[in-house]
Amino acid sequence: MPDLWQDAMDHAVSLARTAGSHVRDAVQNDMKVTLKSSSVDLVTKTDQKVEKLIIESVKEKFPTHSFIGEESVAAGEPCELSDSPTWIVDPVDGTTNFVHGYPFVAVSIGFAVNKKLEFGVVYSCIEDKLYTARRGKGAFCNGQPLQVSDQTEINQSIIATEFGSNRNADVVDNIFSSMRNILCLPVHGIRGVGSAAINMCLVASGCVEAYYEMGIHCWDIAAGVVIVQEAGGVLMDVDGGPLDLMSRRVIAANNQTIAERISEQIDVLTLPRDDIPST
Amino acid sequence: MPDLWQDAMDHAVSLARTAGSHVRDAVQNDMKVTLKSSSVDLVTKTDQKVEKLIIESVKEKFPTHSFIGEESVAAGEPCELSDSPTWIVDPVDGTTNFVHGYPFVAVSIGFAVNKKLEFGVVYSCIEDKLYTARRGKGAFCNGQPLQVSDQTEINQSIIATEFGSNRNADVVDNIFSSMRNILCLPVHGIRGVGSAAINMCLVASGCVEAYYEMGIHCWDIAAGVVIVQEAGGVLMDVDGGPLDLMSRRVIAANNQTIAERISEQIDVLTLPRDDIPST
Repeated sequence: MPDLWQDAMDHAVSLARTAGSHVRDAVQNDMKVTLKSSSVDLVTKTDQKVEKLIIESVKEKFPTHSFIGEESVAAGEPCELSDSPTWIVDPVDGTTNFVHGYPFVAVSIGFAVNKKLEFGVVYSCIEDKLYTARRGKGAFCNGQPLQVSDQTEINQSIIATEFGSNRNADVVDNIFSSMRNILCLPVHGIRGVGSAAINMCLVASGCVEAYYEMGIHCWDIAAGVVIVQEAGGVLMDVDGGPLDLMSRRVIAANNQTIAERISEQIDVLTLPRDDIPST
Repeated sequence: MPDLWQDAMDHAVSLARTAGSHVRDAVQNDMKVTLKSSSVDLVTKTDQKVEKLIIESVKEKFPTHSFIGEESVAAGEPCELSDSPTWIVDPVDGTTNFVHGYPFVAVSIGFAVNKKLEFGVVYSCIEDKLYTARRGKGAFCNGQPLQVSDQTEINQSIIATEFGSNRNADVVDNIFSSMRNILCLPVHGIRGVGSAAINMCLVASGCVEAYYEMGIHCWDIAAGVVIVQEAGGVLMDVDGGPLDLMSRRVIAANNQTIAERISEQIDVLTLPRDDIPST
């Protein structure tokens, strides 16, 4: 059954483009008539509208499929990965960017069956870059094949990460301490575009050697995981173990050597898991 | 004499596009055949080739004009801003990005007369975005007028900065300490694309409220200064005083309020000036 999930993937690509055009319109047009101070409302409205558009379309075409979406989980839906075909969706990845019109905002759609990711679609809608990957079939950006960097020396590498949105002193201490360790390995530089999904696509594109972050959610990275793997990269938990999609921690790297050098520098945070409801 | 420097500006735009196409070709084509480990040679070669192209063309068209360029200064030419019409050029701003194919690399051309900046041209050549500004005549990106953000609340702002290339422990301490102060004001986020010129253009575009950095050079910011001013923004030294183009320190912000809030958080570094030759 070589084309078992091709229909779903084709649908995901079409949905990502449609959803992305709504997001782009909101950034480019609605933002002009919205004071930035009230733009948080705009992002919430856009998030909800776009996620609803995706869910309704998937339910119509694939009525038996399951769904994990940022907005649905925020509204109390469970965040459990069953064996059922499951769409894992972030309608607007990079919400702070969205609010500011900073041009890295993505629609991220991952798809898992039997808890295994089958394809990923990330549409960086302001750049108009569509990243796609299907398990075993390679990764692409606007149809061009992607390949991770062949760099094995950490001191010749650029690493992507983010400061995140948590301003709790302990968390900030931890983030700065890990970042400093990595900067002083030394590396060529540290970058971060403000979207987990796009950071992962930049690993897949070979522009940065690795991306790591703690505090992300499964919907931020599900699609990116397949894109990085299919571009020849590796995924790891920041503790050096295998990636756990629900642990809210990730290293995506061009190879095992670079991933391990990163993981050695990180003081691991234990975060509330995505699949255990907060009480 | 309303069009006194329009010829020079038209020539700068044309040169930035030509130079940018060389830089883009080097990133997209030559990089493919160059191992990343030897790509430092490629950037040096491209820097020198592009600066030479710009200097020769300017000297032919404006034989009396002066020139400050990153590569010329590195080769021992003086870095002095006289009253003479002076082209201040960075042929490849974002060299680390260049080496990695990270898509923010710019040609930056500023132009001063009587030590006053008259116009600035920044060509972000991989994005194909041409930023231009002439004193008193507004700032533009690909012909569209630019306007800084109207945000006055620091805690609703995104701030751009960079880690820089110095890995000396004291400098790194200073950079992290200022960055942490700013993150915890709090702000919405910290970003940085890895090019001073493009960071300044993002301030002008209203995507970030401010950009600050210590360690930059006059050729990194000269063009950006005009672009930020003409988009309605302000320039300041990180110590809160007026910008000194040769002091290697800058705050570019959407307004005075945000610029001052940033300057309050920075532990000022005194760096060897651009206009005093190192001994």
